[in-house]
Amino acid sequence: MIPIQAAEGRFVSHLFWNIDRNLWASLDPQQRSGAQRRFSTCLEEYRSSDNHQAFCYAIWGLKADLGVLLVDPDLNHLNETEHLLAASFPAGALEPAYSFASMSESSEYVSQDNDYDRSLRAKGLDPDSEEYQAKMGEFRTRMQAYINERLYPQLPAHRVMCFYPMNKARGEVQNWYLLDFETRKNYMASHSITGRKYGGDVKQLVTGSVGLDDWEWGVTLFADDPFFFKKIVYEMRYDEASARFGEFGEFLIGINLEPEELWKRLQL
Amino acid sequence: MIPIQAAEGRFVSHLFWNIDRNLWASLDPQQRSGAQRRFSTCLEEYRSSDNHQAFCYAIWGLKADLGVLLVDPDLNHLNETEHLLAASFPAGALEPAYSFASMSESSEYVSQDNDYDRSLRAKGLDPDSEEYQAKMGEFRTRMQAYINERLYPQLPAHRVMCFYPMNKARGEVQNWYLLDFETRKNYMASHSITGRKYGGDVKQLVTGSVGLDDWEWGVTLFADDPFFFKKIVYEMRYDEASARFGEFGEFLIGINLEPEELWKRLQL
Amino acid sequence: MIPIQAAEGRFVSHLFWNIDRNLWASLDPQQRSGAQRRFSTCLEEYRSSDNHQAFCYAIWGLKADLGVLLVDPDLNHLNETEHLLAASFPAGALEPAYSFASMSESSEYVSQDNDYDRSLRAKGLDPDSEEYQAKMGEFRTRMQAYINERLYPQLPAHRVMCFYPMNKARGEVQNWYLLDFETRKNYMASHSITGRKYGGDVKQLVTGSVGLDDWEWGVTLFADDPFFFKKIVYEMRYDEASARFGEFGEFLIGINLEPEELWKRLQL
Amino acid sequence: MIPIQAAEGRFVSHLFWNIDRNLWASLDPQQRSGAQRRFSTCLEEYRSSDNHQAFCYAIWGLKADLGVLLVDPDLNHLNETEHLLAASFPAGALEPAYSFASMSESSEYVSQDNDYDRSLRAKGLDPDSEEYQAKMGEFRTRMQAYINERLYPQLPAHRVMCFYPMNKARGEVQNWYLLDFETRKNYMASHSITGRKYGGDVKQLVTGSVGLDDWEWGVTLFADDPFFFKKIVYEMRYDEASARFGEFGEFLIGINLEPEELWKRLQL
Amino acid sequence: MIPIQAAEGRFVSHLFWNIDRNLWASLDPQQRSGAQRRFSTCLEEYRSSDNHQAFCYAIWGLKADLGVLLVDPDLNHLNETEHLLAASFPAGALEPAYSFASMSESSEYVSQDNDYDRSLRAKGLDPDSEEYQAKMGEFRTRMQAYINERLYPQLPAHRVMCFYPMNKARGEVQNWYLLDFETRKNYMASHSITGRKYGGDVKQLVTGSVGLDDWEWGVTLFADDPFFFKKIVYEMRYDEASARFGEFGEFLIGINLEPEELWKRLQL
Repeated sequence: MIPIQAAEGRFVSHLFWNIDRNLWASLDPQQRSGAQRRFSTCLEEYRSSDNHQAFCYAIWGLKADLGVLLVDPDLNHLNETEHLLAASFPAGALEPAYSFASMSESSEYVSQDNDYDRSLRAKGLDPDSEEYQAKMGEFRTRMQAYINERLYPQLPAHRVMCFYPMNKARGEVQNWYLLDFETRKNYMASHSITGRKYGGDVKQLVTGSVGLDDWEWGVTLFADDPFFFKKIVYEMRYDEASARFGEFGEFLIGINLEPEELWKRLQL
Repeated sequence: MIPIQAAEGRFVSHLFWNIDRNLWASLDPQQRSGAQRRFSTCLEEYRSSDNHQAFCYAIWGLKADLGVLLVDPDLNHLNETEHLLAASFPAGALEPAYSFASMSESSEYVSQDNDYDRSLRAKGLDPDSEEYQAKMGEFRTRMQAYINERLYPQLPAHRVMCFYPMNKARGEVQNWYLLDFETRKNYMASHSITGRKYGGDVKQLVTGSVGLDDWEWGVTLFADDPFFFKKIVYEMRYDEASARFGEFGEFLIGINLEPEELWKRLQL
Repeated sequence: MIPIQAAEGRFVSHLFWNIDRNLWASLDPQQRSGAQRRFSTCLEEYRSSDNHQAFCYAIWGLKADLGVLLVDPDLNHLNETEHLLAASFPAGALEPAYSFASMSESSEYVSQDNDYDRSLRAKGLDPDSEEYQAKMGEFRTRMQAYINERLYPQLPAHRVMCFYPMNKARGEVQNWYLLDFETRKNYMASHSITGRKYGGDVKQLVTGSVGLDDWEWGVTLFADDPFFFKKIVYEMRYDEASARFGEFGEFLIGINLEPEELWKRLQL
Repeated sequence: MIPIQAAEGRFVSHLFWNIDRNLWASLDPQQRSGAQRRFSTCLEEYRSSDNHQAFCYAIWGLKADLGVLLVDPDLNHLNETEHLLAASFPAGALEPAYSFASMSESSEYVSQDNDYDRSLRAKGLDPDSEEYQAKMGEFRTRMQAYINERLYPQLPAHRVMCFYPMNKARGEVQNWYLLDFETRKNYMASHSITGRKYGGDVKQLVTGSVGLDDWEWGVTLFADDPFFFKKIVYEMRYDEASARFGEFGEFLIGINLEPEELWKRLQL
Repeated sequence: MIPIQAAEGRFVSHLFWNIDRNLWASLDPQQRSGAQRRFSTCLEEYRSSDNHQAFCYAIWGLKADLGVLLVDPDLNHLNETEHLLAASFPAGALEPAYSFASMSESSEYVSQDNDYDRSLRAKGLDPDSEEYQAKMGEFRTRMQAYINERLYPQLPAHRVMCFYPMNKARGEVQNWYLLDFETRKNYMASHSITGRKYGGDVKQLVTGSVGLDDWEWGVTLFADDPFFFKKIVYEMRYDEASARFGEFGEFLIGINLEPEELWKRLQL
């Protein structure tokens, strides 16, 4: 089927399911191992291309049993994989609990040439000097790499994942969308300073879902110790960008397990 | 049965279902192909008249498996088709996930003769001149065509569809329904400029649902690349008409597939 | 059983069900026709008294399959009928989708003798004149008939029905219940002018549900063309009574069908 | 089991269930009558002590089939009875629809000695006079009886019951919990005047659920004509205590029936 | 499996389930006792380490049948235990009703050295004096013990448990996260005075869930008489920290029972 490709960014699916335990219990051992093998194979094949990333999670608490995170350059292939994964289990064994549709994206608030030009001039550099040119060249390379990393992310295989969707408020008093660009950029700059403080402990993927799902962005955090999810999200809540304008949906915590470990964890 | 016809506009149903996978798995191959054939035939017959339009979609994520969009001049025939489509599958195989009832409508904010008269006079044209008369005649023809296109739309067969319902806010501070007509018209004018910028990439159908369903309007977007759903809806969020007054419901993304492709996609 | 009668007004039930299609499919033809006959008979017997009114509806979209509207002077008889109708189908075949409990009521804002007295005097009539007395007598007869019609309504058999529940806002700024009586009466007066404009196309039944169900009023509209539901509710949204204070719940559109037509429509 | 007793007040459960009709239909007549007999016996035994009160209700509309109201001095015994009642029916036949956990309580706003002292002095009585002492003594007896009636209520066997939960608002402008005691007492005083006006037609039980269930209070009204539920709740909505600060949950109307009548009503 | 340990605090799961009564009824006596024995054994083993605490509860009303509270230093072990407990019952017999994921944490508002220094100086103590040094040493020991107790709590085996989640408001007027630290500390100080008043009757565990679940904190109260849940939560509602900024979720009341008592209570 002809791919549905995006002018920019990857398609991202967060999928959360419960196991229908009655149905699973009614299967014989061969049906069970067949299901697990098909799921694993489907995931392996998916991962065999650099452009397709996939992780499996056991979910903390009773919100869902398992979660899958898929990143794909083709919406047709992604949607097909959603159904292939579900169909690798016997009909009805995977019951939808929650899902989120979004796309990786750059940020409109990344530093621009003119931001850096201002900072170089402030340091006394002459725009015609070689040093200015060299530094500006490095800046452009750095920003391009950063934008590429946001548009075409390589997700880290940390032990725990935290997902939540969010909006920027359009309240009667606090309305993000009535602020001018510079004000928003300043809010986001101090917000990202908090993020960078935790850079060693928490990696984050911010994907856009305006026009695609019920919230405007999806935030996916990766860490080895979930304590840092609590710490970073709590600290960020005091950033004005969050304090005044952040609206948050459901939070789901997943423990990153390969399929075989996942089946054991879920007592399948 | 005597048709239920509208003084103005078409009846539009957005229907979203999940497949009961257990039930489907219990069918034998003949029952399955029979169901699929009945569904296809029902859709084909529906489409055989110019006035009846229908599309099928595979839905991104776990909100629903499939969606159908129907446009009909007769509410009796539309309601009958809703039940015929569902009944073409074995009893209970299609489980309702979401639906939306609305009618195509013109906009009260379209340019009027007096708007165009003002603009022609501003260009120095004499209302009694032939040029004025000719231009005004063209304007009327153009507007009539535009209104007709809104009331009796011919939907484009783009690869992806985005549906969401919306309201205009009646908040304690921001209340659309307390604004005078000119203010609302100006808001909508700048809003539609954003829409026209994306005219080449995104087609839109706005249908009215005040008094018919839980939201005031349904917005259906059509594109070949869903990236543009994200881009246009995000950009529009900064239009004051949206920023101050837009309230949005559930977003559903459908991949436009003919029935045979749809069954394959859904692993039926 | 001793009737539960109201000091004033009728008891009104809006009942919406889905059909359990699996269960229905498992019945043999005799069981099906038996169920349909019992339902029809139950409805016929109900309607055989002037004081009991009942309508059946096929619902637009996937919110419900069918709806029934019952008007009864006795809550015991009404509640019994709710269960008799459901039990006329095989156990579990009718699955509750939504219901609304309310009572017909007059309006506290109807014109009073002193309103009319003011208007007669303004026309220069002497309260002791015969003309004044005659006109005042007619006014009282007219108002009594109006109040009777509201308390003991005879519902029209139009082709389509629209139901929605509503509240008057008790917001922090806009609070209907803190307004004085005259202000509320003026709001309602201009609201009812909009209603009368559509009198030829739309009939309405407003029932009170404060203390009986989750919303304060239920609004039931009757028309032959649902376009007018959209038109009247949209126009009314600009009346200040709605714009400032109206809060609306779920909207359900029903196509008025006699039981035999209904079963055909629902593919039973 | 050692009772869990309260320092003050009774434990109150409002329980609402639906009947699983399929399951019920699959029972043979003996199983059905056995279930009904066990339920009746359980209720009878419960009622055999003065301190345990219980009522059964058929519910108006489709929100639930039946309701039970239990008043108990021991939370262990109450919780046990909840399970005994459910278990008197075959497993799964009673499906939970809604419940509410609360405790009877006095009101902090009841008149105190110093309120009455002020009123006696205002009438010119000398605190050392015999008349003052006699009246103050009567007042204390009366208040003690009132408080006892609230803490250890004897519920009336009226024909219809209305239940709804409520909160006092903690809005950004209207915040009950930031008002001083006197202001709240005045609000409640004028609110209770409305209540007393309906004393002949409506009895009320207000139970506290702060820290026990999702709302702060449960209100249970008892009457022979549900018209008065509508009338009193509507009139109270204009009391400032409600207009500014009242937030209301789900309303459920029950028709008071003894078990045998209830089974007939529910077509069991 | 390599433990997932936290830099600070314990992982806490609140788990609430309903029993599928149909499924349970279909088991033979041996299957039932086997399930109960497996559950008990799982719990016993869990409790056999000092670092793992677990309680079972019967839930008041129809929100859930039973609840389990688990405290664990290892998220992997906790998540495994969640599944082991559920799997100790036959597949599907325990239906998820609600769960909450959080971590024990200290409070940022605990008294610091400089708070105590100020208070010692105010009493005229010289920082270089032996008395000052001794008192400061005691203070540090006391605070360290308090922080340890919060981070690594030993839960009391009281008869009743109350759980509810909460947020601090980020409203358009009242926004906790825009207050400076001192203001928040003062709010919390007067709030904790209310808490200490009830110290003899109610123990509390406050766990952090920002970034882990849908609310910011979970509050778990322990008492022998649930009257005190009502009393303390009601009184606290007037503390400005709650009145202005407290937002509360679902309240669940559990009666602390050992597994064997629990099965009896639930009529298993």
